[in-house]
Amino acid sequence: MAGIRYQGRLDLGLLVSRPRATAAACFTKNSIKAAPVRLALDLFKGSPEVRLKGVLVNSGNANACTGDEGIRRTKLILETLAREMKVGPDQVLMSSTGVIGEDIPHQRIIHAIPALLKSLSPQGLTHVAQAILTTDTEEKVSQEVISIGAKDVALFGIAKGAGMIAPDMAPPHATMLAFILTDAHIRGHVLQACLDEAVAQSFNRITVDGDMSTNDTVLLLANGASGAPPIDNTSGPLVDAFRQALCALCSDLAQKIVKDGEGATKFVKVVVKGARDTDHAKTICQAITNSPLVKTAFYGEDPNWGRIVAAAGKTMLPMNEEKISLWIGDCLLVEQGRHRGEDAERAAHAAMKERRFSVVLDLGMGQGRFSMMTTDLSKEYIAINADYRS
Amino acid sequence: MAGIRYQGRLDLGLLVSRPRATAAACFTKNSIKAAPVRLALDLFKGSPEVRLKGVLVNSGNANACTGDEGIRRTKLILETLAREMKVGPDQVLMSSTGVIGEDIPHQRIIHAIPALLKSLSPQGLTHVAQAILTTDTEEKVSQEVISIGAKDVALFGIAKGAGMIAPDMAPPHATMLAFILTDAHIRGHVLQACLDEAVAQSFNRITVDGDMSTNDTVLLLANGASGAPPIDNTSGPLVDAFRQALCALCSDLAQKIVKDGEGATKFVKVVVKGARDTDHAKTICQAITNSPLVKTAFYGEDPNWGRIVAAAGKTMLPMNEEKISLWIGDCLLVEQGRHRGEDAERAAHAAMKERRFSVVLDLGMGQGRFSMMTTDLSKEYIAINADYRS
Repeated sequence: MAGIRYQGRLDLGLLVSRPRATAAACFTKNSIKAAPVRLALDLFKGSPEVRLKGVLVNSGNANACTGDEGIRRTKLILETLAREMKVGPDQVLMSSTGVIGEDIPHQRIIHAIPALLKSLSPQGLTHVAQAILTTDTEEKVSQEVISIGAKDVALFGIAKGAGMIAPDMAPPHATMLAFILTDAHIRGHVLQACLDEAVAQSFNRITVDGDMSTNDTVLLLANGASGAPPIDNTSGPLVDAFRQALCALCSDLAQKIVKDGEGATKFVKVVVKGARDTDHAKTICQAITNSPLVKTAFYGEDPNWGRIVAAAGKTMLPMNEEKISLWIGDCLLVEQGRHRGEDAERAAHAAMKERRFSVVLDLGMGQGRFSMMTTDLSKEYIAINADYRS
Repeated sequence: MAGIRYQGRLDLGLLVSRPRATAAACFTKNSIKAAPVRLALDLFKGSPEVRLKGVLVNSGNANACTGDEGIRRTKLILETLAREMKVGPDQVLMSSTGVIGEDIPHQRIIHAIPALLKSLSPQGLTHVAQAILTTDTEEKVSQEVISIGAKDVALFGIAKGAGMIAPDMAPPHATMLAFILTDAHIRGHVLQACLDEAVAQSFNRITVDGDMSTNDTVLLLANGASGAPPIDNTSGPLVDAFRQALCALCSDLAQKIVKDGEGATKFVKVVVKGARDTDHAKTICQAITNSPLVKTAFYGEDPNWGRIVAAAGKTMLPMNEEKISLWIGDCLLVEQGRHRGEDAERAAHAAMKERRFSVVLDLGMGQGRFSMMTTDLSKEYIAINADYRS
């Protein structure tokens, strides 16, 4: 991708854009925010259009719950990075993932910066994708190419996340680490609007364990190096093409995160429809996708629809059990509140034997609809999280 | 206990009070309510003072998500029970626990009623305690004796519940099955007020998996057979003695439920203090006690305080990490947002090796305080719920 350079290690990566890149971002809504997130938020709040040249990413230490010392160390790292890159201090950001509550070894990171800068190359974005992994079992990369004004415009995204993954619906907020680079030429507020929509449709619709992180960040950099005509309006065919590609890329990354969810053996799309409105559908969808009893039933390939309906009901939102219908895969298991018998049960059980299947709950009350991707809850999830401090 | 009779089987139990007993009750707030819960709610809503002679309890089938047919079958069972007992149809209730979404075998229950009535004896309340168990590993019984007006007044309680256990704070609602019998003489509205308070302090402060059931019921029957003076006021020394005994009994039963939580190897009291107000403390306490990452850390005996603070923060309530202190057992692990080092870590780890320990999170912001009992999240929980349809 023209003009965007990087270098990767096992625990440290650097994204560099030779032309300054216009930036848009979404951050966690957790009340406790990591030091690098707090500094990034300050930068975005303090400027109508943030333009960046470098983003430093580390795994192994979240730099969260580290107080003033965490802020001080992050600033020291970023000052060094800006000085070495010969750019202003407002043109660099940092992003961290790993253990919460331990001081970040800033000297080791500072010492690594000159070598990082020397080894930049356009081939190694996947090394950065590797460098940011924690309990992930594989790197998560996605790309799109579109044509804007007869020029090829590329979008390239990397993401990490396997646990402490929970949806959070209100942009500008998100739930894992993702960096998306494009050589499109696009104004800051348009970029942010596109990202908000893409995040709402993708990262904010996944959950692994319902535990929102302190460090979640989605960062989108657009440096214009494609030479394509500028996009400076939130409507029109140019932005539509870009928005569509961005949504596709974010959805792909989000699905990769769920598929690699800690201990996951199942990958389940849960659709709630017929709710009174979208908010009701969303609340019910979240209750189902985070229910331990529903998720253990997924693991056991048990079409235990009572648990799904009970999880919906624990939202205490109005619903009428006699209007409820439920599909697992293609199988209509419950119709108007009545179980459809043993044949339907067997068909639903068969559908759940697949690694990927869907659950559709129709409340039969209105037009509200929401869908999310979730995992099952397996013994392996327990093993990973009882043994590993992340 | 004078005047209150019972008979027990593995899956069916009957509680009978010879004198009609004044009743108070709390039911689940789940939007989807089982058929017997819906009928019981109708009875309590339709009468200023409910007086009961018989309560039939079954396990194995929750009679939830069974529609009009579930209501019809429950009514057929209760009509038979009332006829056989020669009492009015408004003097009997039913309570069920077990699988959701399957029609209850009402004929088998109806056929068992005459034998149940013939075999009533005062020695077998523990048989009823056994008859209502599902994934529980032991029956849960508790008793208190107090003196009211120089008369001995007894309280006797039985409970069941190991999974699908989640707190729900607003009386008159609760979260498992519990039946409390007393020979106190007490007015209906006073009895309900005492029960609301006791439930708020006990059953509504426990969680196993955060999944609120469709069938949760706490029923309190007072038949006056002790001959003690009547309690007809919500204040005064008589009601204070009764309320205190009832709270102690409910707390004991609630603790027994958590200790027998599905797959539980740890029994953890989580206290949130220094919150802005009680509501904030409660929301944060619920977030911590239901967090899969916190509960797997309990299982792993890992003093992973970052997960506890992150779970608090996912409530998105205002908090300042630099004011946060955290104890595990007697060990001050985090002081004003700073980890206290490896010695503290070791001490906290040692505290977590006990089957029972406490976690205290002080937000340092105000006077709000709330505490709850929870379990860890173990591989055994997964095994129980992936294999067993409850």
